[in-house]
Amino acid sequence: MPSEFSVTRQVEFHETDMAGIMHFANFFYWMEACETAFYRSLGLPLISFVPGKIVGWPRVNVGCAYRAPLRFNDTVVVRLLVKRLTTKSVTYVFQFRKEGVLCATGEVTAVCVTDDGRGGMLAQPIPEDVRARLQEAPPAAYTE
Amino acid sequence: MPSEFSVTRQVEFHETDMAGIMHFANFFYWMEACETAFYRSLGLPLISFVPGKIVGWPRVNVGCAYRAPLRFNDTVVVRLLVKRLTTKSVTYVFQFRKEGVLCATGEVTAVCVTDDGRGGMLAQPIPEDVRARLQEAPPAAYTE
Amino acid sequence: MPSEFSVTRQVEFHETDMAGIMHFANFFYWMEACETAFYRSLGLPLISFVPGKIVGWPRVNVGCAYRAPLRFNDTVVVRLLVKRLTTKSVTYVFQFRKEGVLCATGEVTAVCVTDDGRGGMLAQPIPEDVRARLQEAPPAAYTE
Amino acid sequence: MPSEFSVTRQVEFHETDMAGIMHFANFFYWMEACETAFYRSLGLPLISFVPGKIVGWPRVNVGCAYRAPLRFNDTVVVRLLVKRLTTKSVTYVFQFRKEGVLCATGEVTAVCVTDDGRGGMLAQPIPEDVRARLQEAPPAAYTE
Repeated sequence: MPSEFSVTRQVEFHETDMAGIMHFANFFYWMEACETAFYRSLGLPLISFVPGKIVGWPRVNVGCAYRAPLRFNDTVVVRLLVKRLTTKSVTYVFQFRKEGVLCATGEVTAVCVTDDGRGGMLAQPIPEDVRARLQEAPPAAYTE
Repeated sequence: MPSEFSVTRQVEFHETDMAGIMHFANFFYWMEACETAFYRSLGLPLISFVPGKIVGWPRVNVGCAYRAPLRFNDTVVVRLLVKRLTTKSVTYVFQFRKEGVLCATGEVTAVCVTDDGRGGMLAQPIPEDVRARLQEAPPAAYTE
Repeated sequence: MPSEFSVTRQVEFHETDMAGIMHFANFFYWMEACETAFYRSLGLPLISFVPGKIVGWPRVNVGCAYRAPLRFNDTVVVRLLVKRLTTKSVTYVFQFRKEGVLCATGEVTAVCVTDDGRGGMLAQPIPEDVRARLQEAPPAAYTE
Repeated sequence: MPSEFSVTRQVEFHETDMAGIMHFANFFYWMEACETAFYRSLGLPLISFVPGKIVGWPRVNVGCAYRAPLRFNDTVVVRLLVKRLTTKSVTYVFQFRKEGVLCATGEVTAVCVTDDGRGGMLAQPIPEDVRARLQEAPPAAYTE
C-alpha cells in the first residue's frame, strides 16, 4: 500500500511572474497534478467529475510554506506523502525539491464527496477500494 | 441593439511573467471576461453550463495581435465589437487600449451549442431572443 | 491608519474548473489582487519589481480554508484584515463572502525584501512610510 | 537542422473549465511549453530574461483553431513545426492530437528582441547560432 509518490517537472515560462520566480499560487496546481498522477498510478480514477462518475475530492484546507524560489526551467521534484486518513478525508503533504534542496512544503486536505443530485456536494466515506490502496506515511518519511 | 461594449481593468501581479509584462495568453481571459460582462449587460445568461442551462459558446477560432506590452497595474480598456453574426456563430473583435493607445487586437469566433445528451456538443441556431439583442458593428466603429 | 480593506469581484468563466466551481488555487490570485488594491488605496507603490523599484513582498506562508464553493458569475466580497505586523513581515487575513455568507478564509504572510544585487532577495525592515500607514486590525474586526 | 519537435502531456484538472473541457486559452500555454522544450532540445537557452541574458521572443501574433475538445487526463501530443523564418522573427505551427486525431491547430509568430536599456524591447536579427539550428518545415510535413 503506497504512502508516497513523486513527479518531476520543470517550471514553465507562463508560471513565472514579474519577480522572475514561479508565482506562489502555481505551487497548488503542481500539488494537484502530483495527486492526480498518484491516483493514476494506483489505477484509481477518483478525481473525476465527468458524467456518470460521481466521486470528487474538493479541498477544505490548503497551505504552503516557501523557503526558496523556483525559476524558469528549474527541474523540480514534487513528493506527495499521505499524512492522515480519516473516514471521509485525506491530508497530503507535498515537498518541492530542486537539486535535493527543499524549496517549499505544501499541505492539502480533501474531502470525499458525491453529487447530492441537486447540484451540491455531500461528504461520504472514502470508498473501500480506495482506502485499501492508501496508507499513512511513517514519521521517518518526512526527511528534510 | 448594442454592437459594442467595454470594460476597464488593471493588470494583476499574477498576470505578469518574468519578462515583466502581461503574459500573452492572459489577453484571452480578458476577452472572455469582457464577453461575459457584455451578455450580463444584455440580461442574457448565455454563457452558462450549470445544470439545466444547456446553451454554451465554445470557441472555434481565436487570435490576437500584440503591438505594445501591458504592465503590472496598467489600467486598460477592453472594447468588444460584434464583427459578424451567422446563423450559428458570432465573431467578436476586442481592442485593448492603455491611455488611448491601441496595444492589442483580438478576435474570437464562438459557436452556439447545446448538449447532445451524450456528453458532446451540438451546434444550433442562435436563439431568437439572443439574436434580437445583437447587431454587427458598423465599419466606422473600428477606429484606431 | 487603515487595518482593513475590501474589493468586490465576480467569478470569471476561466476561473472555474470541471467541478463547476472556482478552482481552489484561484482564491490566492484574488487575495493578491485585494492586497494590491489595498496598497494602491494607500498611495503605496510597494509591490513593484520594475527597474529602479527594489522593494517586494514575497510570500513565506499562505493558507486557505474553504466552506462553500463559488460559482461562475457569483459576486464576491474579498475583505483584507491586517492581522500581524513584525519588523520585516506582514500577515493578512482574507474573508470571502457571497451574499454575506463566509465561503472561505485565507491567510498570507509576506516578507519585505530588497534585491541583494546578485539576483537574490534580502529581507529588510518594512520602510517607515509603509509602516506608518498600516495597523493591526482589532480582534472585534474578525466577525463571521 | 530540426524543423519540428513534439511533446506529450496530459490535461490537468485545473486546466479544465466548467464546460468540462480544457479552457481554450490554455492551449497557448502548451504551445509555449512545447517551444521551450524545443529550444532546450537544441541546447539553446534563448527564451530567457534572467539577468545577463538579454534575448527574448515576445509574441506579435498568435491564433488557434479548435476542432475537438480536450478533457481531463487526456494524453495529447503537441507537435511544433517551424513554418517561417525571417530576419527577425519565427513563425511556428502547433498541432494538438489525441489518439492521432487533430483536435486543434495553433500558430505563433515571435520576434527576436533585446533589452533597449531603458526597460523597453528592441527587435534584432536572430543570432547566427540560433538561425543555424532552425529550418522551415517542408510542405509535406503538414499532414493531417
